[in-house]
Amino acid sequence: MTTVATVAELAGRAQKAARAIAGAGREVRKAAVLAMARGLVDHAEEILSANEEDVAAARGRGVRPELLDRLELSLGRVEEMAEGLRQVAELPDMLGEVIERWRQKDGLWIEKVRVPFGVIGMVYESRPNVTADAAGLVVKAGSAAILRGGSDALGSNRAIVRVLRKSLEAAGLPKDAVILVDSPDRGAVDELLTAKGLVDLVIPRGGAGLIRHVVETATVPVIETGVGNCHLYVDRAADLDVALNLTINAKTQRPGVCNAIETLLVHEAVAGEFLPRAISALRKRGVEIRGCSKTRAVVPDVRAAAEEDWATEYLGLILAVRVVPDLSAAVEHINRYGTRHSESIVTEDPEAAERFLREVDAAAVYHNASTRFTDGFQFGFGAEIGISTQKLHARGPVGLKELTTYKYVVRGSGQVRV
Amino acid sequence: MTTVATVAELAGRAQKAARAIAGAGREVRKAAVLAMARGLVDHAEEILSANEEDVAAARGRGVRPELLDRLELSLGRVEEMAEGLRQVAELPDMLGEVIERWRQKDGLWIEKVRVPFGVIGMVYESRPNVTADAAGLVVKAGSAAILRGGSDALGSNRAIVRVLRKSLEAAGLPKDAVILVDSPDRGAVDELLTAKGLVDLVIPRGGAGLIRHVVETATVPVIETGVGNCHLYVDRAADLDVALNLTINAKTQRPGVCNAIETLLVHEAVAGEFLPRAISALRKRGVEIRGCSKTRAVVPDVRAAAEEDWATEYLGLILAVRVVPDLSAAVEHINRYGTRHSESIVTEDPEAAERFLREVDAAAVYHNASTRFTDGFQFGFGAEIGISTQKLHARGPVGLKELTTYKYVVRGSGQVRV
Repeated sequence: MTTVATVAELAGRAQKAARAIAGAGREVRKAAVLAMARGLVDHAEEILSANEEDVAAARGRGVRPELLDRLELSLGRVEEMAEGLRQVAELPDMLGEVIERWRQKDGLWIEKVRVPFGVIGMVYESRPNVTADAAGLVVKAGSAAILRGGSDALGSNRAIVRVLRKSLEAAGLPKDAVILVDSPDRGAVDELLTAKGLVDLVIPRGGAGLIRHVVETATVPVIETGVGNCHLYVDRAADLDVALNLTINAKTQRPGVCNAIETLLVHEAVAGEFLPRAISALRKRGVEIRGCSKTRAVVPDVRAAAEEDWATEYLGLILAVRVVPDLSAAVEHINRYGTRHSESIVTEDPEAAERFLREVDAAAVYHNASTRFTDGFQFGFGAEIGISTQKLHARGPVGLKELTTYKYVVRGSGQVRV
Repeated sequence: MTTVATVAELAGRAQKAARAIAGAGREVRKAAVLAMARGLVDHAEEILSANEEDVAAARGRGVRPELLDRLELSLGRVEEMAEGLRQVAELPDMLGEVIERWRQKDGLWIEKVRVPFGVIGMVYESRPNVTADAAGLVVKAGSAAILRGGSDALGSNRAIVRVLRKSLEAAGLPKDAVILVDSPDRGAVDELLTAKGLVDLVIPRGGAGLIRHVVETATVPVIETGVGNCHLYVDRAADLDVALNLTINAKTQRPGVCNAIETLLVHEAVAGEFLPRAISALRKRGVEIRGCSKTRAVVPDVRAAAEEDWATEYLGLILAVRVVPDLSAAVEHINRYGTRHSESIVTEDPEAAERFLREVDAAAVYHNASTRFTDGFQFGFGAEIGISTQKLHARGPVGLKELTTYKYVVRGSGQVRV
């Protein structure tokens, strides 16, 4: 079991580095992230050549084209990674912020202070850009990152992490603030997930299968991210032009992402007028429709939706459509099948809107707006590491703030408990 | 596998009840918790008689006296449970609080709003008072509770939960807001811990073994509570009278609780003066000392501490003592052996204090004060459900606020993402 020793050893080194990162000044952390950005650009050739080998090998193994697309880097993509790091560097540093402060009757001062997590593990798929994004955010947040990307991208990740570590060292910080789990062995992931006392937090980023595995295996705290079975509900009091616009945007503006909608719910009072328009507009944009029986009564050539369609995150140009008798049925459908990500109502009725916003249980609930806004940049948080669909206690976009925690600092003059 | 169906079915009922509790007004929730308090007092006899049977049966099974003491209720203890509920009822209701609010350039309003968790599971040992405490806090926080106490207390818990459910109903809320997992079968616990999508949060409360089992089994989010291997560090610049006072308080004021200290660390420059006084005072109070070799060089009749002493939460009148060469060694010892609960430095040197407060990784760090203050009431939060020793994102005392979460509410006028 050499890998057991290895992950524990990596984590021990990351812990030490995390203390140095936390203790460094905010200017040092900022300079380090900027140095990481420069490093990527300066060593782009080296990164691209490692990536070419990864892509060729993956293609040889018959990896699907959309996965190859995620794996493949270009000079432009490396520049984007660097630009992402520069933006992270410029975000305000929140460490040391006094969130609350009060004085007890006995003279004790209690402060709730923002502090780093320590060691943050990231488990993700074969998207080398996540390696740079995660490393930058974690270092800026005062922690150390242990990264485990998909094995298809191992060569690319090695090259990127080598550059990032050099840049950290040049900036006067320990290179072990960014560590790659340099093993294609799946056992290494599980060791990371169960490294209690060594790893303070793990964030999985990827498809439903990856996230399920992490949640089921981890004994360290996890921020569950990403699976988005999102809905748009067109109420009886909707402005149907607005509804059409939002439907098209939420489904087609970028169908492969977690905050795109997968099911459209339509109040039966407006289904007859809205559905033919919406379905025709969606089909023109290449969207396949799967509808309930009432949908098919209005637009007969729609394929019948099965029970599993309500629970599916297509991540592509397919949309399930269901006609519901009222707002309650819409809320019930969403709370039953949704993944607590992003949910929207289209209505001109303020009471219906408030009820929906209150009763739907999701990280982000919308009135008359596209679900596509659930995103760190769109919310004004800057870069994010994913969208949390759990509730404890980082919900929605996980940006710099959510990558920190707090501790209580208590200053006394000899107080004892009586 | 009838229990599988049972826990899922209980959780489904709890989900429905949670929606009603969340939708009820704050006055209704407050009245319900007050009704629960009255119910306990009105039905004290019924509860005490069930408890007598539990105690007799446990005694017959040879359960240890300190566990019997935790199990046993009296009229006074029932009154205390009721008083606890009354205090919870009077706490400010935080649901609906707008934590942050901002307007985007495109006119979207984003609010971060405090909302209930939904269904909160509690797994604990044979302490029937936890049943009432947890039920009150969870209902006040707008959620529903699924309670699984130790099997020794099953009869008592049945009686208490019956009363609480009747009181809820009388107050116009669904009785399923408080549900007891009415089975001594250990499999039921694991079903609760893996009820993804049905249970939003589980909080274990009890000894290290229980907490480890919950963390290792759960796939739902967990707030890890309670294990406290806490330290007091007496610096070279300590006021030794203050240090003596704090040592005695932190060790002996209530040795069986998680925020009592288990190891005393002493700077070698003051060990010769401090240790004889401290050890003599502690021994007078019945404390057994286990010391490192340097401690034993100062006070020779001290028993030698073994490596495992540094990692042990005694929860009783034993104290490990270690002499350290400097502040760094003290911090290192704490970060290595501590459980991230409560840690204190005694010093008149402000720089040493600030370094300790910054570098020690724990939920609560103290300067010149007893670790015994880490507690919801002491911090001014009111009743708590435990002390969180994890970092995501409820750290320290878990009171009403930590039993809520948030969601983003976004109000637009047709905004789409471009």
